[in-house]
Formats: sequence, structure tokens, C-alpha cells
Amino acid sequence: MTNETTQLADRVERFVRDVVIPYERDPRSTSHGPEQDLMHELRTKARQAGVLTPHIRPDGSHLSQRDTATVLIKTGLSPLGPLACNTNAPDEGNMYLLGKVASESQRTRFLEPMVRGEVRSAFLMTEPADDQGAGSDPSMLQTTAIPDGDDWIINGRKTFITGFKGAGVGIVMANTGSDGKVAASMFLVDLPSAAIRTERVLDTIDSSFAGGHSLLSIENLRVSREQLLGEPGQGFALAQIRLSPARLSHCMRWLGACQRAHEIATAYACRRRAFGKLLIEHEGVGFQLADNLIDLKQAELMIYWCADVLDTGSLGVSESSMTKVAVADALFRVADRCVQVMGGTGVSSDTIVAQVFREIRAFRIYDGPTEVHKWSLAKKLKRDHLQAAS
Amino acid sequence: MTNETTQLADRVERFVRDVVIPYERDPRSTSHGPEQDLMHELRTKARQAGVLTPHIRPDGSHLSQRDTATVLIKTGLSPLGPLACNTNAPDEGNMYLLGKVASESQRTRFLEPMVRGEVRSAFLMTEPADDQGAGSDPSMLQTTAIPDGDDWIINGRKTFITGFKGAGVGIVMANTGSDGKVAASMFLVDLPSAAIRTERVLDTIDSSFAGGHSLLSIENLRVSREQLLGEPGQGFALAQIRLSPARLSHCMRWLGACQRAHEIATAYACRRRAFGKLLIEHEGVGFQLADNLIDLKQAELMIYWCADVLDTGSLGVSESSMTKVAVADALFRVADRCVQVMGGTGVSSDTIVAQVFREIRAFRIYDGPTEVHKWSLAKKLKRDHLQAAS
Amino acid sequence: MTNETTQLADRVERFVRDVVIPYERDPRSTSHGPEQDLMHELRTKARQAGVLTPHIRPDGSHLSQRDTATVLIKTGLSPLGPLACNTNAPDEGNMYLLGKVASESQRTRFLEPMVRGEVRSAFLMTEPADDQGAGSDPSMLQTTAIPDGDDWIINGRKTFITGFKGAGVGIVMANTGSDGKVAASMFLVDLPSAAIRTERVLDTIDSSFAGGHSLLSIENLRVSREQLLGEPGQGFALAQIRLSPARLSHCMRWLGACQRAHEIATAYACRRRAFGKLLIEHEGVGFQLADNLIDLKQAELMIYWCADVLDTGSLGVSESSMTKVAVADALFRVADRCVQVMGGTGVSSDTIVAQVFREIRAFRIYDGPTEVHKWSLAKKLKRDHLQAAS
Amino acid sequence: MTNETTQLADRVERFVRDVVIPYERDPRSTSHGPEQDLMHELRTKARQAGVLTPHIRPDGSHLSQRDTATVLIKTGLSPLGPLACNTNAPDEGNMYLLGKVASESQRTRFLEPMVRGEVRSAFLMTEPADDQGAGSDPSMLQTTAIPDGDDWIINGRKTFITGFKGAGVGIVMANTGSDGKVAASMFLVDLPSAAIRTERVLDTIDSSFAGGHSLLSIENLRVSREQLLGEPGQGFALAQIRLSPARLSHCMRWLGACQRAHEIATAYACRRRAFGKLLIEHEGVGFQLADNLIDLKQAELMIYWCADVLDTGSLGVSESSMTKVAVADALFRVADRCVQVMGGTGVSSDTIVAQVFREIRAFRIYDGPTEVHKWSLAKKLKRDHLQAAS
Repeated sequence: MTNETTQLADRVERFVRDVVIPYERDPRSTSHGPEQDLMHELRTKARQAGVLTPHIRPDGSHLSQRDTATVLIKTGLSPLGPLACNTNAPDEGNMYLLGKVASESQRTRFLEPMVRGEVRSAFLMTEPADDQGAGSDPSMLQTTAIPDGDDWIINGRKTFITGFKGAGVGIVMANTGSDGKVAASMFLVDLPSAAIRTERVLDTIDSSFAGGHSLLSIENLRVSREQLLGEPGQGFALAQIRLSPARLSHCMRWLGACQRAHEIATAYACRRRAFGKLLIEHEGVGFQLADNLIDLKQAELMIYWCADVLDTGSLGVSESSMTKVAVADALFRVADRCVQVMGGTGVSSDTIVAQVFREIRAFRIYDGPTEVHKWSLAKKLKRDHLQAAS
Repeated sequence: MTNETTQLADRVERFVRDVVIPYERDPRSTSHGPEQDLMHELRTKARQAGVLTPHIRPDGSHLSQRDTATVLIKTGLSPLGPLACNTNAPDEGNMYLLGKVASESQRTRFLEPMVRGEVRSAFLMTEPADDQGAGSDPSMLQTTAIPDGDDWIINGRKTFITGFKGAGVGIVMANTGSDGKVAASMFLVDLPSAAIRTERVLDTIDSSFAGGHSLLSIENLRVSREQLLGEPGQGFALAQIRLSPARLSHCMRWLGACQRAHEIATAYACRRRAFGKLLIEHEGVGFQLADNLIDLKQAELMIYWCADVLDTGSLGVSESSMTKVAVADALFRVADRCVQVMGGTGVSSDTIVAQVFREIRAFRIYDGPTEVHKWSLAKKLKRDHLQAAS
Repeated sequence: MTNETTQLADRVERFVRDVVIPYERDPRSTSHGPEQDLMHELRTKARQAGVLTPHIRPDGSHLSQRDTATVLIKTGLSPLGPLACNTNAPDEGNMYLLGKVASESQRTRFLEPMVRGEVRSAFLMTEPADDQGAGSDPSMLQTTAIPDGDDWIINGRKTFITGFKGAGVGIVMANTGSDGKVAASMFLVDLPSAAIRTERVLDTIDSSFAGGHSLLSIENLRVSREQLLGEPGQGFALAQIRLSPARLSHCMRWLGACQRAHEIATAYACRRRAFGKLLIEHEGVGFQLADNLIDLKQAELMIYWCADVLDTGSLGVSESSMTKVAVADALFRVADRCVQVMGGTGVSSDTIVAQVFREIRAFRIYDGPTEVHKWSLAKKLKRDHLQAAS
Repeated sequence: MTNETTQLADRVERFVRDVVIPYERDPRSTSHGPEQDLMHELRTKARQAGVLTPHIRPDGSHLSQRDTATVLIKTGLSPLGPLACNTNAPDEGNMYLLGKVASESQRTRFLEPMVRGEVRSAFLMTEPADDQGAGSDPSMLQTTAIPDGDDWIINGRKTFITGFKGAGVGIVMANTGSDGKVAASMFLVDLPSAAIRTERVLDTIDSSFAGGHSLLSIENLRVSREQLLGEPGQGFALAQIRLSPARLSHCMRWLGACQRAHEIATAYACRRRAFGKLLIEHEGVGFQLADNLIDLKQAELMIYWCADVLDTGSLGVSESSMTKVAVADALFRVADRCVQVMGGTGVSSDTIVAQVFREIRAFRIYDGPTEVHKWSLAKKLKRDHLQAAS
């Protein structure tokens, strides 16, 4: 790790610990996430501290995934940290994707305001289960983009659209296939848009994402040729580019959050007494904290391993699947133990531990539930074995 | 099981399914539990349907624990069911205790309005961890009751006092020991009381209990001799009477809730498609539902086994510890799988599944965290072995 | 439970504890199971003690499944107990099946010597995986029975044939279908038979079954009409009759074995010291024993629940699947913890704990691996849901 | 990783796959481990192939721990591989220790024949539980070394002494403290010795270690000053030097073994059919193999992480504890799944899978059971927290 990265990570850590954590009790964090003015207030301070969008250099290039990991883990030390530093989902992934494939004019119009931390974005892919829409199986895409002159007209419904409320930029996945076949394409849109109606913001178990998660109806949304990202039909290929880094950055941020939860639980167990000794002196508690130590280390090692794979230029599809499953499950165990060790305090909002637990529960589902990753890993195992055997 | 119990349980089930479940989306359920007027509305309907306080007969006697299980599981089919039917915690346990040990005047003044479903109650035992107060280890009791003529003056702080907000009756545990020794005593108080100040209602991961969980300061609360439950110094012995039935009734209600969550998840998996087939046809999903089936059955068997032990007249301390650990852990696995099977829908409030998951998480802590029960079971194993060996 | 059953169970327990357990160090128990003369010696003593074939009454009728459970759990207290008492697999299941469906002459020739404990038997169903033969999926049956006059000529290979070596009776499953369809039929044969060659006795992780598990070749085995059990093509239906009771009796015996392993581990933890106290006083050890207590109780409750279902006359296919999965998994956890608690002694043969661990590992596979049961339970869940919904 | 290491590792892998694996069915592997002449035969071939003692350079220096990991994982691909290549326990750890602290004459007399692969060694530390001797808690050391002129006279009992049978060198831990205090010292002895009597070779669940595990009585064993390793009373400090590398090398070898078991199980699942498709196409099987992939990767990452810590010169006590717990538990899950996936074949000795399962079960206990490591990690967490807080 370069000295520069270490210094950046230290600066981010100090910012999150000193500046961001005091905001954790700010009433502008609602069950649908932090409100817009809280975000702007935090980002102003991050800009002043030199830690805004820390993973993208002034020239627009990105840190390596390894260096990104070092920095993003630190932004995750508070659930508000990623939003404060502009390393939050889905913006981080959206910026990554646009940085790779956006045209010059798309960069100016959509990407740059995001990098400057002025604007948030949303990724409109998932569709309602009740419509048998795209979810874990993206091929079930229902939203259509029908050509109309040089434009397309988009119709459909989207759900769990994180950060949509309050976003300035949207990336919409729609089917441009004409003959019953799915040809997914991605379009960039300015938000808010009169053609996209919020049916409702969902109430969900997690609450860290600004804007929450929305259920949307897209009705006759007109997009022009220059709003198309890449080429028609490239939607899934573009999604693949975004996939592993975005997935990995979730792991990074939540690792930071769980490291913090573990700190809080350890401090509690070193302070609270029961049956004549400190909680941590009870093996029933101490062993749980020891298990945390191991799970946190394993999560960290998986993240850096996957980062290194991505830094070779690989898409890292299997590696990021393995990492996502391992990290989400390990962090859930960590968060669950922190709750348990802290007893009643653990299920209250007196610390962030209960929130982290709720967030990680959701994380076991979004970005591919554990089962879908294992399904694709099993397919890969079969493929690899049959190839090696032939 | 008697025919009578079966009919009562059927009536309760129909009431909960037909009348209570539609209220699950009523906005009067807040993060601090259902509001008072929602409770009264539900109880009026329960009274009309003949299912209010179904586990206590008109003469004040209680159903056997086995019959109570059959009925309470059904009230649990909705998180609102127990409140609607007056089988909720802590009232059910408080009514049980008062039914066993209250004096005639105490019954009239405190118990009867509760049995009629007019009044809720609270059990003021747990104290703040930051004060090193009573929690899993009740001997750390800090609240004092100092004699003053024929009265006592109570001072102290209490926390996680479920249902305090809006309650009409409180049972306060305080130390009447004079010489540095703990002599716990229980006092009945009318609520609200000017001497008990709510510092705040805690924000917690669960949200089913009316009134939520409060942090309280008791300042010079004067109680008279006739508010003393039993005798001075009997507090822990009285708590033992309440302990196992109250613990077991939590298991009953939450079993019902998890049976319902499992129904919802199964229906979802039989409806939602992915990768060319129904979710339930994927072994990765179907096996989770099969595991639920097993866990639900085991939870049920443990509950009835423990009920039978209590019905012999035993205090059932070890048996209710075993049951609480086994049931809370099994139901958590069930709730967790239901969330997972339902994907994004599972972490949203579109169904009660996410709530049930949150509730069961808290249940693994209250009424004795898993670790405290295992600690006492291990002590019993050692004691039994050494006795048998001698 | 009747007094009679309780007394019988007590007698069995005393016999196993006083007479059988001392034989556990007898060198006639090999890695392929106890030798024939050890079996005869034990059975002679069981006969004298009035505990031989205790689950079958003199008139040939069987105890209820509930009573059988009470007795078989006790025979399981030693890995040698079932063989000593003639309640071992596969004999117990074979006697059950023949008791239900054998003709008069078949009873005299095959069943009665088994009930008298003179002869062991084998159930020739499973076929080698390398042949893509019948295993978890019985429809893959490869062994054929071709009509030849009034007889059939059987050819095929069988594997994991428990107890074949030394058996006097065999039940052979073979395909009598003529047109490429599978029509399974069962035949009774005297053993040893010149037409059945032992390729080898397998070396397996378990070692409690007399005769071990054999890999066999059947070459032109001629069987007559009166060796056919039931009717041609009834093989799978007959297997269903044997299925649940045989499966459940495995659960019973292994529960007894794990109760004993838990006794041994508890005694060890109450004797061995480390770091200044008894092992059991370390929560890391005591909690494991507490978990055992819970798992053993749950296993017991599942067994009695399933027994009650079978005692209603139901085939109990789903219930025995649920029970098998729950019990095998619970007992494996118990055996694993006993090993762990005892440290080095736990992995040695100084006690039966290591053997019980090995046996239960195998039990998670035979009689349907966990996965196959969950697969059928998931199918049932889907079927039941769709039926209820329609 | 250097090119040289990669080439060495490749050579070792080819040797183990091509030469050693065919010996896995050699009847000279008994339940007490491979016999002496099998060892010599394998080592002769390893010497010819240039892979004998591959982790020690001709000048006696050792590869880094990172390079050692790369090589030892490959020797572990067969349970016979470490013995063949002279990287087996306890020799590898003993050579490491003597390489660090032996005097010149001790190196010549004891170490060099071991490095040449001519002689095996044993580490006599653990004592019988029934004597309340040294085990997880080394301070319970009972064996005494009483000064007698310039010599010491050693008396005591030792157990689980791996490889003692057939060893040429022994390292004996004994108490040289005079005043009731434990002052552990290590002595080098030539074996066999008339003063060390084998009470018996234990029957244990594992079977890969040459010579098995012995229970010994040491009666008036006279050792001279030059047989003392280091200084009197340094025994525990010397044990610390050996501790982490020896512990880590177990992880390396067993990782190799589990990688191989996973290969075997995958091949099986890609070949065996049930219910109309390949086993691996069943999610219930494929997900288990996917879990293996993740566990194997995590085990590998922990090993290399810990190796890097040791390569900085740190004793790595906590890191090797974390690694041992994580790796032993992960590999047990892997081995258990391999058994399960392979059904009946998995519990037979037709492949090494059942053996690997048995070996890993024992590994969860030796070199510190999981619980002891968590105990020391919890103590470290408390210490670190209190230091940071002060």
C-alpha cells in the first residue's frame, strides 16, 4: 500500500470519527435515510477536509480497487460516512460505470456533478416481483424502450430504486429488443422527471441510504440517442462492468460499519458487569467477540483478494460472488453477535449497532442474494470440472 | 386436547385472520407500538367475538398451560393479535402473577381491570446498564424502597419498561434490604404517577408492544403497605412464579407469528418465478422452507413439553430455559429464512415478515438472553452430575 | 406410557448398562462390526434377561411405535445394545416388514428365526453409484429379475448391504418390469447363497453393524414364486411400509447412544480441570453441554411425535422425513460437542464417544441423506400450498 | 511469490499426484499410521524427485513462511504427502525449533538426521487427563526432571505422543522447578529409550500420522546437560517459538488435503445422477460445493496472512490462534460437505474423503482446541481495549 493511500485513509478515518459520527443522532436521518440538507452539510465538511469523493483523483481516474478498499472501509465506520464522502451506493457504482463508458458529453452532463458531490443518482434496474419483473434473474426485464424516430419511449415499473428520491441522475435499464427477445439497454436521464412517478417510498428494514428505496412507474419517458449509454443491446454487458466493483464496494463500506459495531460491543463488554465480573470475562461473551475478530479479518482478506483480482483487469464475476457471499454472511454474524453481547442496549438505537444489524440483513439480499451467487458458483464448478476432464 | 379448547382456538384463529390482520396496515401502529385507540378498537371487537382474555375463565381461573399454548399460538398469528385479545406481554404474565398472589383488594383494584382488557400494565424490573443495574443478573438491583412509617419511598431508574407508556398498573421491583443486602420486594402502583418520569421511550428494533419500551426515573414514589405484593423480601420468589409461564407465553405468541411468516414466504415462493421456474422449485429456496417446517414443529413440541411440565405444578425453571433458548433460536432461523426467500420484498414492510424478523431478534435477548439460560443450564448439569455421582 | 412399557424399558436399560457395556472393549468388535460369536453370546444373555426382541410380543404383534421408542432408546445406550437385544438395523425393519406382509410359509421360513434372534438378515436395495444404480433415487434400479418358468432369475450388483456377511435371510429388490419400465419387486432368499458373491466388505467410517456393509454381485440367482414378497411390481409400495418405522428406529437407537455420549462428556467435564477450574465451569464447555441437553430433548420430542403419527396408521412419510433430518442433525451436533469437550480423549477409542460420532456421521447419509428429505418436503410444501390455494 | 518457489511447489505437486497418491491404497497404512518401511520407500522416491524436506534449504535455512505455505499445501494433497516429503508433524515443527535454538552438537546429533529424512521425532509434552496433567493448560505439567549431579532424572507420563513409535528423536517437556513452582524445560533424547515405556498406542479417529499417538511412562530417564535445549526453565518460551509455525503448518497441510477432497467430491457430483440430472445440478449439492470454494479460499487467505505476520519476525500468537480456529473450522465444514455430497461413497474408504473428514475432526482439537484459542483471543481483546481506553 502506498504511503499516499495510507495518509488518505487516515484522513478519512479522522473525518468520519471526529466529524461524521456526531451527526449519527441528527434527527434528519429518517427511516427513509438521511435527508438532503444533512447530506449537503456533511459533504461541505468533507470537501473542506479534503475527503470528498476520495477514491477518484482530480483527473477523473480511480484509485486501484485495493486502494479504494483501504479508503472505503474507513468511510464505512459510520453509516453516514459514505454519504458524507460521496462513496455511497449507488453513486459510487454509477460513477464507476460512467467513468468507464460515458461519452464526453455524458460525462459533462451527468458524471461531473456527481463526482463533485452535488448530485446523487439512481440505478433503475430491479422490477416488481408481482409483475414477474427483473430481479435476481435480469432476463425477466419487463420495462420497454420503443424506438420513436431518433428517440426511445420507455414504459415500465421499477422497484427498490435506491436513492431515487432526491436524485439528479438516473440510469434506466430497458428492453430495446423488438422481437420478443431481451436486448437490454441503459439510458441516462435527468431527475426528477415528469414521466417517472413515485408510487411510494418503501418502508424497509434498512435506513442508511439517502432517499430510501422507491417503487416507480415510468410512463412514456422519452430519451434521445445521446442519453443511450454505449450501444443498444449492451445493457447487460455494461451491467457486468459495474457489477463486481459496485458489489465489492458494498463489502468495503459494511466492513467498516461492522468494525465499528465490534468496537462498540467490545467497549460495552469491558464496562458492563454481571454475575460478579465483566461481561467480556464471561466466555459466553468473550468467545463471541473472538469470533468477531476472526470474521472481520476474513472479510477483510476476501475484500483485498477480490480487489487484487479486479486490479488485474478481470471482471472478477466469480471472485466477487464468492466475496459477496462470504462477507455478507460474516458481517451478519458479527452484527448479530454485537447485538447479542449488548443485550437490551443492542436492540435499541442508543448505539448504531442495531442499525448496522438491520443494514447487513438487507445486504444479504441486495446485489444478489446469497442463493443466486451460489447458484452461479455451482454452475462454474461444473463447467470448470467438465472442461478440465475433457 | 379438549374439544372446548379446540373450538376456542379456532374462534381465536378466525378472529385474528378475519378481523385483526386487516389492521396490520393501520397507520396507528408506530415504531413505539400500536397506539391506545387502536388497542381499544381491537379489544372491543375481540370482546364482541368472545375472544378477549381467552386464557382466563370468567371465574378468574386460568386455562392449563397446554390449553393456553393452543390459544396463544393463534393470537400470535398477527403481531397485533395478542394486544387485540389481551394475551400480550407483559400483561399476560402480570395477570398470571396477580392471579396467584394478589390480595383480595389488590385483585379488585389492579387485576380485574386488566382481565377486562380496559387497562394495560408494566413490569418495572430491569435497570440501566450504565448504572450497573439489574438485568440478566437480578441481584444487581439498584432501586431502593426505604421504609417511611407504614409506607415505603421508592427511588431508582428503570429501563426497557415495556408498555409503560399508556399503562394503568405498574409492578415495581425494589430493594427493601437495609444492611447492604438485597431483599427484593414487589409493589403495585397506579399509573401514570407523578413520581415516575419518562426520560424517553427507547427506539428499538422491535415495534409490536403497545407503548414501546421506556426509560424511567422513579423519584420519591410513596407506596403503602397494601401496595406490597406478598411479603417484603419475596420479590425474587414472586418473580420465579411469573417467570416460566411468562417466558413460555412469549414462545407461544412468536410461534404463531412465525407460522404466519412461513405461510407468507411459502405463498411468495409458489408465485414468484426466476430462472425458468417457481422459486420453491429451486432447492436453494425449497430447502429453506423445508427447514422452516422442521424448526416450527420443533418449537411447537418444546412449547407443549414445557407446558406439560408447568401443568404438573413444577416451576419448570430449567425446562423453560431450554424451551426459551430452543424456540427463540429456531424462530429466528425461520424468520431469517422467510426474509431471505422473499428477497427485496422480505426486507420491506409490504408484509409482516420483516417485522417478525425484527421482533424475534429482540426476543433472543429479552426474558433472558440465550447465554444466561445456557449458563444456568450448565450449572444445573454440574449440580445434577455431582449429586448423582455422590 | 403404560407401566408395562416402563418396566420393560427399565429392564432393558439395566441389561444394557450392566451386561452389554462391559463388552464394549471386547476385541471381537472389528471395524466391520461385532463378530458372530459375540452376537450369539450377547443374545444368549439378553434371552436370559428377558430383553431379546423386546418390541415384539410372543404372539408376533409389535409394540406401538411410542412404546417401541421407549424401549429402543434404551437398547441404544450402547452401540452393542441393539445387536444384543435384536433391535438392530436392518433386522428390526425387516422383521417389521415381514410381520406385515409375509405369507404364512414365509413367516415360518424367514421371519421366525429372526424374531428368535438366531439369524440376522440383510436388505439388498442400494446399488453402486458407479453403475448409476438405485440409491437416493430408487427408480434407477438396475438389478433385474427375469421370469423363467415359475421362477425368476436375478442379476445385478448391490452395495452398502448392511449385515450381509453372516446373514441368514436376504430381501432383494429387483426390477421385474419387462418393457423398459421399472416394476420393482421384493424377493426373500436364504443366505449365504452361491449366486451372491461378496466383491468386498467396504471399509466405512462406522463400525457398529454386525457384518459391516458389503458390495455384492448377484449372478443368476434363481428364486421361486413363493419367495416373492407380496405381488410383482409391489416393491416400492412394500418399501414404503418399511420406510418410516425403520427410519424412526434408527433415530431411537442413536438417541440412546448420544444420551450416553453426553453422560460420558458431562462426567469428563466435571472431573477434568484446566486454568484453575473444572472444564464444566468454563462457559465454553458448559454451554456446549447445555446445547446438548436441548438437542437431546428436541430429538426425543420429534421421535415421539412421529411415533404417534405412525400409531394412527399413517405412513408418516413427511413426518419421518422431518424427524430423520432433525434427529440426525441434532445428534451429530451432540456427538460433535461431546468429542470437542473431551479433547484428545474425545478422538480416542478410550470411550465410545468417538465411535458414536463416526456412527452419526454415517447416519446423516443412510436412510435418505438430509438433502433428499428436504427435497421431498419442499415438494410437499408446494403441493400443499397449491392445493390450499385452489 | 518467487519463480523458484512456484517451481518447487509445482514439482512437489507433481510428485504427490503422480507418485504418492497411488500409495494411498497401500496396505502398509494402518489405523496407527503408515508403517516405517512405507515411509522409507516414499522418502527414497521424494529424495530422487528433489522434493524431500523441500522447505529447508541445503544450508539449513528455512523458506519464508509464505513460501513454506505454498509448498506445504501441495505436500498435503495426499494424507501420505507430508510424510513422503518430510514436512509432516511433529517433525516439521521439531526441525523448526531445533533449527532456531539447538547447539552445534545438538544439531549434528539430533537435527541433521531428521532433515535428511532418515529419522522421525516426537514431542513429549501432553500428559494424561486422568492425571490432571498438562494439556490445553501447560501449567499443569506433572512430569518432573530432578537434578542429579550434572544430569537430570525425568519421571512422568505422557500421552497423545504423535509419532513416538518408530521415532529416533524425542523432545521431552519436564518441570525442573524445585519449589512447587513450574519451571518447564525441554530435553532432547535418543529414541527408543529403555526408560520410556509405551503403555499403549491409542486408537484414535485419525490415522495419517506415522507411529500413531502413544501413551507413555517415563521412568528414571537420565539426561545430561547437553541434552537440555536452551536453558533450564525456558521450556515454555521455547514452546512459544515452535508454536505458531507448527500450528500454521498443520493448516497448510490440511488445506491441501481438503482441496483434494473437494476435487474428488466435485468429480463425483459431476458424474453421479439422481432424479434425472447430475448431482451438481441439484442446488442442494451444488450450493455445498460453492460453499467449499468459499471456505477453501478463506482458509488459504488466513494462512498466507498469518505467514506474512510470522515473516515479519513476530511470534504471531494471536494471529496463529485466529488462523487455527478459522482454518480448522472451515476445513471441517469442507470435509463434512464432501462426505455428504458423495453419499455412501463418502463414508467409505473408497476415496480419501472419509479419512480427511476424520483427520480434520481431530485437528479441531490438537494444537489447541477452538475453545482455548477463543479464550486467549477474548483475553487479548479485553487487554487491548483497556489499554486503548487508558
